[in-house]
Amino acid sequence: MKEFAIHLEPDQKKPLYEQIYEAVRDGILEGHIPEGEKLPSTRFEAEFLSCSRSTVELAYDQLLSEGYIRSEPYRGYFACDVRELYHLTDCLRHTDVSVLTQEKTVSEYRVDFSPNGTELSQFPYPAMGRIMKNLMLDEGEHMMQSSNPFGEPDLRQSICDYLFRSRNVSCSPEQIIVGAGNEYLLIVLCQMLGVGHTVAMESPTYLQAYRTFRNIGYEVQPIDMDRNEMRADMLQDSMADIVYVMPSHQFPMGTVMPMKRRLELLRWAVQRENRYIIEDDYDSEFRYRGKPIPALQGLDRAGRVVYLGTFSRSIAPATRVSYLVLPQRLLEEYRAHCGFYACTVPAIIQKSIYRFMREGYFEKNLNRMRSVYKAKHDFLLTELRKCRWISKIFGENSGLHLLAEIDTKLTEEELVFQCQEEGVRVYGLSEYFLSRPSGFGKPVLLFGYGGLTEDEMREGLACIAGIV
Amino acid sequence: MKEFAIHLEPDQKKPLYEQIYEAVRDGILEGHIPEGEKLPSTRFEAEFLSCSRSTVELAYDQLLSEGYIRSEPYRGYFACDVRELYHLTDCLRHTDVSVLTQEKTVSEYRVDFSPNGTELSQFPYPAMGRIMKNLMLDEGEHMMQSSNPFGEPDLRQSICDYLFRSRNVSCSPEQIIVGAGNEYLLIVLCQMLGVGHTVAMESPTYLQAYRTFRNIGYEVQPIDMDRNEMRADMLQDSMADIVYVMPSHQFPMGTVMPMKRRLELLRWAVQRENRYIIEDDYDSEFRYRGKPIPALQGLDRAGRVVYLGTFSRSIAPATRVSYLVLPQRLLEEYRAHCGFYACTVPAIIQKSIYRFMREGYFEKNLNRMRSVYKAKHDFLLTELRKCRWISKIFGENSGLHLLAEIDTKLTEEELVFQCQEEGVRVYGLSEYFLSRPSGFGKPVLLFGYGGLTEDEMREGLACIAGIV
Repeated sequence: MKEFAIHLEPDQKKPLYEQIYEAVRDGILEGHIPEGEKLPSTRFEAEFLSCSRSTVELAYDQLLSEGYIRSEPYRGYFACDVRELYHLTDCLRHTDVSVLTQEKTVSEYRVDFSPNGTELSQFPYPAMGRIMKNLMLDEGEHMMQSSNPFGEPDLRQSICDYLFRSRNVSCSPEQIIVGAGNEYLLIVLCQMLGVGHTVAMESPTYLQAYRTFRNIGYEVQPIDMDRNEMRADMLQDSMADIVYVMPSHQFPMGTVMPMKRRLELLRWAVQRENRYIIEDDYDSEFRYRGKPIPALQGLDRAGRVVYLGTFSRSIAPATRVSYLVLPQRLLEEYRAHCGFYACTVPAIIQKSIYRFMREGYFEKNLNRMRSVYKAKHDFLLTELRKCRWISKIFGENSGLHLLAEIDTKLTEEELVFQCQEEGVRVYGLSEYFLSRPSGFGKPVLLFGYGGLTEDEMREGLACIAGIV
Repeated sequence: MKEFAIHLEPDQKKPLYEQIYEAVRDGILEGHIPEGEKLPSTRFEAEFLSCSRSTVELAYDQLLSEGYIRSEPYRGYFACDVRELYHLTDCLRHTDVSVLTQEKTVSEYRVDFSPNGTELSQFPYPAMGRIMKNLMLDEGEHMMQSSNPFGEPDLRQSICDYLFRSRNVSCSPEQIIVGAGNEYLLIVLCQMLGVGHTVAMESPTYLQAYRTFRNIGYEVQPIDMDRNEMRADMLQDSMADIVYVMPSHQFPMGTVMPMKRRLELLRWAVQRENRYIIEDDYDSEFRYRGKPIPALQGLDRAGRVVYLGTFSRSIAPATRVSYLVLPQRLLEEYRAHCGFYACTVPAIIQKSIYRFMREGYFEKNLNRMRSVYKAKHDFLLTELRKCRWISKIFGENSGLHLLAEIDTKLTEEELVFQCQEEGVRVYGLSEYFLSRPSGFGKPVLLFGYGGLTEDEMREGLACIAGIV
């Protein structure tokens, strides 16, 4: 790092940790910091830059989670291999739009650790009600006519601005297609791609997407994960021409795909005609440490990434509004084959979301929910750490669930069943596997906390403690 | 008819024409009036029953349109062959829910005779706005949570009641699946049926459905129409295992499928395992003469009819709410393969429609729109009859468009193009054919009137008169 000096500018509006992050990232991308180079320790760097150690830690965390650097126990941080010349054209701002709500399933359990639990008690219902009423009075006829088949133009413009600002997604509003939920949009996407494809998916994965592909008649090729990432060699050897990933926050593992693996994916895509990457960015707004991870789409220069976003988590599950960002070639396929479909989201819903965003409710609500979930997250993490029957905790930087490895003689199935009998619903990790892993040792449980109070979490954990 | 006497009961609440209709219908179904038997003339019957001739005419019209009797020029009316023992278990009431609105496409033309034109200026926007606002205030959390994947239970109950009352559809709310538009529901239906089927469709037909089947990868077998009905012999000879029909009002021909043909379809369906009939009942509420035609679904005892209904026309296009009524066996397929899909219609939209119906707005709005469209229909029909360049008018009993055969030396394509050049958009019938008919003589145009004023219709016709 000798020839590579970081200059901090404390007067700049940009936070210090972000300046450190950017300097190191650019150093790695531009080759000033070669692969394998050891970075200064956080203590050394903090002294050198005259800033607090936690500022440097935050920057390193971000670099770590994005895969620019790796950490080796007792040795420190090292620059990763980032060979391709992809650059982030415009670095992400640390925006405030960062929280989401999630599906709440009506539950017959005392305590339900569903990863889809949500807290909607603080949603600004009167504001949304007023917006809808006013739309009916002011623009009623437009609300009841057929809308633009791609989606309302002003909503698409807002989505476009939002994605650029917060996700580094670069697109024009013309590339955006609004539809009634992720599954619907995946179905339509497959109609653009045509029949008979093979999709590679991580195992474990998001089963809704898996089932949708199966219903369409696509083959699904499960790809194992190493160190919580999709194994690139297995993808390379597979027959897949489409890959479905969640780079910002893998479900259910809660990991972030490192930059190196992202670039490998993009390389894989350009190796053959008509290979595509589906990037499901379902809850990226919601991250507790560091800033949100930029989307894979922003790195793609070859038009091979299809970005899938949703308001199900950033507003509420029942809005049923998702959107695709299509590369140019697929946009033409959409116009040719699917242009006749009417938009599946009612105009009144689209316009309400547009006004909800424009009038600032969206951002305010996200910030409020972020702090609500952050508090729940911290509480649960503290409680889990107290449990002697938990040998490992992971996936703790973002999302609405944590994972924990349980130290017990019971099998995962037995554990889940016995908890259920006691009125506590827990979710075994193996439920999300497409192919059963050979030797998955101890049980791993998902602990969703979005819909639970602190008392409920405590009650649930106490119950599990009595079983393991 | 000697041994078959009709007894009228003038004190009964049932209209006289309906009593005549039912008596003759039951006589035919029960075999008292054998096939080929000549019915009394309307004049004779009116004298015999001491009622007005127009009452008898109305009853005969209904019997004619449902295919119980046929008319032979200069000879009179004859009973049709209705061999099967299907009965309408509960005869349709003449309900008041009978009008619809339709898609309005934003048009760059002076006059656009689109069959999707709608008149939405009189929709009760303030009522709908108030309903939505109150739902957000009273049941906000429920509105924003994920709803029942099949659809909101109370909306499904309302649809069930409505279908039974007005369409003779017999089902339980459990059989109803609410979804974001007809195309979405057809896609999901095909996922229940599985890949690799062949669908028989009339030619001409509703192209949105055709394109949807093609996108799914189904083969489509076009079936010619004879006297405006699907040719049963061609269906029998085809490889199709699914048939898509619009028995109540064929689009674009505007015909009603006769009872005999309906029974043949049901017979075809039961001849093999896994044959299904998709009944698209898109605008049955909207009929100007006689009462609505009962749905095919109500005749089905074997669970082979899938009924597809929509609020796009009975409320407004942008609501994007349609529904399937599934037979038991497909319901099980849905649960097994598609039960994981969240409902594609936002809860707030479903609940708003439920309240719109419950509070009487739905019926009032339908009645208002029916009279609006009836006036437009009558005006256009009168104007068309004055045109010397029109040799034939058909499809005039229901819907939002009329068809007219044009007496001109121009081809249909030339005529449509020249009108377009003059700023008048007309729609040639041949656009809707799947296979080009061998010798389709004179041009036939669709004249939609839903979105046009009387002045616009007059202006459009004057323009066409200058071209033909």
